[in-house]
Amino acid sequence: MKKWKLLSSKMAFDNKWFKVQKDEVELPNKQIIDDYYVWLEPNVSMVVPITEDGKIVLVRQYKHGVNSLMIECPAGFADEGESYEETAQRELLEETGYKADTLELLGKLSKNPTKSTGISKIYLARNVKKIAPLKLDDNEEIEVLEITLEEIIKMIAAGEIWATGTVSAIFLVLNKLKYFHEL
Amino acid sequence: MKKWKLLSSKMAFDNKWFKVQKDEVELPNKQIIDDYYVWLEPNVSMVVPITEDGKIVLVRQYKHGVNSLMIECPAGFADEGESYEETAQRELLEETGYKADTLELLGKLSKNPTKSTGISKIYLARNVKKIAPLKLDDNEEIEVLEITLEEIIKMIAAGEIWATGTVSAIFLVLNKLKYFHEL
Repeated sequence: MKKWKLLSSKMAFDNKWFKVQKDEVELPNKQIIDDYYVWLEPNVSMVVPITEDGKIVLVRQYKHGVNSLMIECPAGFADEGESYEETAQRELLEETGYKADTLELLGKLSKNPTKSTGISKIYLARNVKKIAPLKLDDNEEIEVLEITLEEIIKMIAAGEIWATGTVSAIFLVLNKLKYFHEL
Repeated sequence: MKKWKLLSSKMAFDNKWFKVQKDEVELPNKQIIDDYYVWLEPNVSMVVPITEDGKIVLVRQYKHGVNSLMIECPAGFADEGESYEETAQRELLEETGYKADTLELLGKLSKNPTKSTGISKIYLARNVKKIAPLKLDDNEEIEVLEITLEEIIKMIAAGEIWATGTVSAIFLVLNKLKYFHEL
């Protein structure tokens, strides 16, 4: 099985906050598609912060795409020139006031491989400590929660945590912490 | 914590294959944002098909957004007038040739709650049977795989399965099948 061949690209919708690219591609069967659209989504760093007593630090905030209050792992887009790890540390501190001494990369994920170029890197932050108040923009409102992994699994099953990035990050943590060992 | 108030909406990019909406919203602090963009992403049905001998049926295909061959659960957008469950049955049959007698709804997920309106519903299909050849468009190329849950967990940990929709669907199945019972 082969990848498609990119023949040309141009911006189809070029807004500061949302960019869509129109690609002309050649398929393995030589068919040409001249209008395949992809969202140029910025890359994301997501952190699963664990306190010394084993609780996960999550954030609850309004998300306009689905018009809902969502409980998720701290995450955000990179500022210019930032590495994934720097973004992770900054977003953790800004959104929760917690700090991690070290971050472990758990994996790389795609939320929408068909239609978005965006990549998310997931970090585990052990023994995080609260060191500062939240640092929020005027238009941000965030509630910080500390929840056990057992409770998070129940909340995912009940549909109270339902963003795929966060569910996937918890999956990677459960695996890292050997919860799947006995399967 | 309150939701934002939607004041007005208009189409900002209105293409058959990709639609972006520009919303004017009022925040709880009364601040107005007049240019919040969201992707009007079609809703998706995803199926986790399990064979009688306990293997999961997955599909491998090229995904242009991330320029990669991806292994994922069968899934697709609804045709006009279709229910989520009808889409799930149709996509399962078209992409794999397998059929489920019954589907159980495992949950509702959002891949990008911040910037996309799209909702995915996840179904568990037990005891699926191969009843037909694949039914693919000219431009579709799909490889069908049967993989155990244990192997899938290893593949997720190794980064070989890395789409958040599929990782989250496997999470819901592990919970449904009581793999988390002992935590």
